[in-house]
Amino acid sequence: MFSQTTEYALRAMAWLALSPDTLTPTGQLAEKTKVPTHYLSKVLQQLGDAKLISGRRGVKGGYRLARHPSQITLLEVVNAVSEVKRITSCPLGLANHGPNLCPLHRRIDAVAAATIEIYGNTTLESLLLEPNAPKPLCDTEMTAKLSIGGVPIGTRG
Amino acid sequence: MFSQTTEYALRAMAWLALSPDTLTPTGQLAEKTKVPTHYLSKVLQQLGDAKLISGRRGVKGGYRLARHPSQITLLEVVNAVSEVKRITSCPLGLANHGPNLCPLHRRIDAVAAATIEIYGNTTLESLLLEPNAPKPLCDTEMTAKLSIGGVPIGTRG
Repeated sequence: MFSQTTEYALRAMAWLALSPDTLTPTGQLAEKTKVPTHYLSKVLQQLGDAKLISGRRGVKGGYRLARHPSQITLLEVVNAVSEVKRITSCPLGLANHGPNLCPLHRRIDAVAAATIEIYGNTTLESLLLEPNAPKPLCDTEMTAKLSIGGVPIGTRG
Repeated sequence: MFSQTTEYALRAMAWLALSPDTLTPTGQLAEKTKVPTHYLSKVLQQLGDAKLISGRRGVKGGYRLARHPSQITLLEVVNAVSEVKRITSCPLGLANHGPNLCPLHRRIDAVAAATIEIYGNTTLESLLLEPNAPKPLCDTEMTAKLSIGGVPIGTRG
């Protein structure tokens, strides 16, 4: 029941977070995230519109994070492509429900609340610094080469 | 980030649960759930394929639940139109990740787990029996008229 676009956006941002100081070519991003290039371009457009990445399109184009990975939560990424909305009043507009949600919409809202909590409490940086865990999107040999701010990933945190 | 179809399916099933012993005409279902008829027909088809409802299409058609509302969870409804899948191995097929998920996919999986817990622990019947809550999809005057198994809603549980 979750959109594929959401996962693709998270993959792209996780990869960009691995080398936040350089432009990553779109082709490399498509290859590493295993997202079709055409689909990825649309996702990148949305992430750019939300000011989460900066860069340029085209053959020599590429993208980088607009802010440090510690300053971007997964929730911001998800919201850039498909907003997670809490339910604050009856979606059917029933007058006697109003802000007092019925049990059905309370359950749907509970799923939104849980999603917001999980993604809102996780930054891109925290994904990379988690000890004893494989790095997102990295095969073994890549992991040792990557760094944040000059400090090799896996030696911090 | 959640599919509209999911909410429409839940609305339809919640409405059918209000009168589980009779066929509800599709037109009435569309009106009460505020779902466009054409869209609703597709949702009903999926719910029928999942054997959650039975009935017949067409002008004189209608639908009813295939089982008692106490025997159908919201998760079954959601899965009928858009399955909630746990992540059990790296979606990118990275050999060194395998079943040991990276922190990104652990977060995505945590959202799936929370969703399954919330929807899996709620039956259609429990939505209708919750005390001091408006009934799903019902305006005030309808609520007093509806019943489950001959017992007016709101007098049980």
